[in-house]
Amino acid sequence: MDTGRERRSWGGSGRAAEAALKPPFSFVVEAACHSARAGRLRTPHGEVPTPCFMPVGTKATVKAVAPRTLAEVGARVVLANTYHLFFRPGTKIVAAHGGLHRFMGWDGPILTDSGGFQVFSLAETRKVDDEGVEFTSVYDGSRHVFTPELVMGIQEALGADVVMCLDECAPATVGRERVAAAVERTSRWAGTCRAAQTRSDQLLVGIVQGGVDADLRRRSAAALLALDFPAYAIGGLSVGERGGDMLRVVEQMDGLLPRDRFRYFMGIGDPLGILDVVERGVDLFDCVLPTRLARTGTAFTANGRLNLRNARFAEDLHPLDADCDGHCCRHTRAYLRHLVNQKEILALVLLSEHNLRFLIRLCATARRAIVDGRYHDWAAGVRARFAQLDER
Amino acid sequence: MDTGRERRSWGGSGRAAEAALKPPFSFVVEAACHSARAGRLRTPHGEVPTPCFMPVGTKATVKAVAPRTLAEVGARVVLANTYHLFFRPGTKIVAAHGGLHRFMGWDGPILTDSGGFQVFSLAETRKVDDEGVEFTSVYDGSRHVFTPELVMGIQEALGADVVMCLDECAPATVGRERVAAAVERTSRWAGTCRAAQTRSDQLLVGIVQGGVDADLRRRSAAALLALDFPAYAIGGLSVGERGGDMLRVVEQMDGLLPRDRFRYFMGIGDPLGILDVVERGVDLFDCVLPTRLARTGTAFTANGRLNLRNARFAEDLHPLDADCDGHCCRHTRAYLRHLVNQKEILALVLLSEHNLRFLIRLCATARRAIVDGRYHDWAAGVRARFAQLDER
Repeated sequence: MDTGRERRSWGGSGRAAEAALKPPFSFVVEAACHSARAGRLRTPHGEVPTPCFMPVGTKATVKAVAPRTLAEVGARVVLANTYHLFFRPGTKIVAAHGGLHRFMGWDGPILTDSGGFQVFSLAETRKVDDEGVEFTSVYDGSRHVFTPELVMGIQEALGADVVMCLDECAPATVGRERVAAAVERTSRWAGTCRAAQTRSDQLLVGIVQGGVDADLRRRSAAALLALDFPAYAIGGLSVGERGGDMLRVVEQMDGLLPRDRFRYFMGIGDPLGILDVVERGVDLFDCVLPTRLARTGTAFTANGRLNLRNARFAEDLHPLDADCDGHCCRHTRAYLRHLVNQKEILALVLLSEHNLRFLIRLCATARRAIVDGRYHDWAAGVRARFAQLDER
Repeated sequence: MDTGRERRSWGGSGRAAEAALKPPFSFVVEAACHSARAGRLRTPHGEVPTPCFMPVGTKATVKAVAPRTLAEVGARVVLANTYHLFFRPGTKIVAAHGGLHRFMGWDGPILTDSGGFQVFSLAETRKVDDEGVEFTSVYDGSRHVFTPELVMGIQEALGADVVMCLDECAPATVGRERVAAAVERTSRWAGTCRAAQTRSDQLLVGIVQGGVDADLRRRSAAALLALDFPAYAIGGLSVGERGGDMLRVVEQMDGLLPRDRFRYFMGIGDPLGILDVVERGVDLFDCVLPTRLARTGTAFTANGRLNLRNARFAEDLHPLDADCDGHCCRHTRAYLRHLVNQKEILALVLLSEHNLRFLIRLCATARRAIVDGRYHDWAAGVRARFAQLDER
């Protein structure tokens, strides 16, 4: 790490950055520490200070976490899944509520994905061509076609603040040719999505694909940049590639993507991974990991992950994480272990909100470290401490 | 209903009633409307205005409801199960926390049952004699003996504010002779429990048994009254007897139990049943029903129970219960139905807190009606409205 590099100042470019997005949206990089950025996204439903972890509310609910609890743990933006909502409960009923905010009872910012990732990861068989992708619903086995136009229409009906282009997410394991074809198609679909957008109160994000191939990533970024998206996502990572490859791509993106737009890394939720991508200029990220781990009895702590099924916690009177200010950490590990052990729903409830609170606090602290120009030192300290007990 | 009867005034007997319990406890009947009473119980962990529904926290958690949510829905006292806590996590670890309040993170009043009901209802085989009852643990099949002394020791270690005598709860279906033997044993054990009590900061409740036999009930009450308990519970009901029989026993108890002690009906949680026992002088009651129903997708509303699995709610944009002030009722029935349908944990969370809120509001409104001397009219209105949609 070249810690001798000069700290970038973004004070002067704030206005220019703000101009890059059309009202009611804006994004300003308020401070930077090397590549790491402290930004602020404004949406019709509120502000999002970045770096920011986005809890995943797949079916219009963050699993086991009530909307008011989301606010309590400090969530600023929530992701919901177009694919799942399209099938259950269906777009129509969400639209009848006036959109997702009212439907799920969350009046902060919402982002919907395009459903692309689910189509390509959940369906056993699918047929993709330039028009769209035909696939089988996981709900009832019926056949459906997602086109860029349809996906934009669904997302406009769902009414999130931030919406995503339909992309083809090629698995890390396929050959270069198929990744190249996916990049080509993702670029074409991005144009179609851009043209299909009719709502001015939704910010449309372009998704860079290209696997771990630097040349394809460059090609994908160039095609999207030509469409001048107000923000860019880094897709097709965290899907089985090596960690080093992933970070290399993120670094490359940091060099290619415009500094005045926010960057969204799709699908990262482990604390150390978050530190790595924030260090490389990522502003926004999401993952089911914190709530999914909670449902297995696993909790993030400043000293690493703890698995509360472990019998060694049976008589442990310490709080789950002495550093944490959340409600869960007012309880002892012995009590939480008892709940996990007895399969009590409250275990899932408390650990889900705790793991979210942990990541949200991590991001808030990261932001302060960036503003103070000491991100690398701070992150090194977090990494060292996290390794102490980690039970992965 | 003899609505012409004079409304009883309890203003003058408040001081005398207060003197019946030793500090730090007191119980005052502040108003009465025929047999229905508006009281106030004081405990080391706070006051309990009565009539009061007590949520059940079997294993030191009200299922799916966090302690702060319990406070939010207005719970004033919570019940925990001696039987379950004795086995999991064990008395020792609860005691190491300084007791249940700290262990479960609830600093309001707590009542523990004696475990008697579980011993007699859960165990497939058991052997009871005057010393105690031998039974098989549902957790691991091991054999155990609960004696009155042991049960008092467990409850003293758990540290609840209100504790219960070990009783023998004879099923409604057995013959008079077995019920008579259970009454005899319950009386004997009550004396042993009274003598075994060492903590002065726990209020010990005697339990009247006797099935639906008026003579045995009288005998049971007389034996307990001779021991001068600070409060009395009506046990052995809601176990399969006919509703008319149940209410007859409660009426009989109203005539036999001292008016200056609170009366606890063990195990009633359906709204109309609560109205019936409150009308007959009961102050406190508990049941798993509201949280258990919630886990099946069923909600109490002012117009009766609704089963949210029902497809007719799929497009219902109304709140669950327009009269309710709880968080759950900020959501539409369509959203809640979607959560239930998709087996989302949030459905259990929201419906559990809603059903508790419903019963707690019902009791608070009942209390106001008693104070205002219009309990019967009010209850008749609630009953009529509740019958409108009820989906039992």
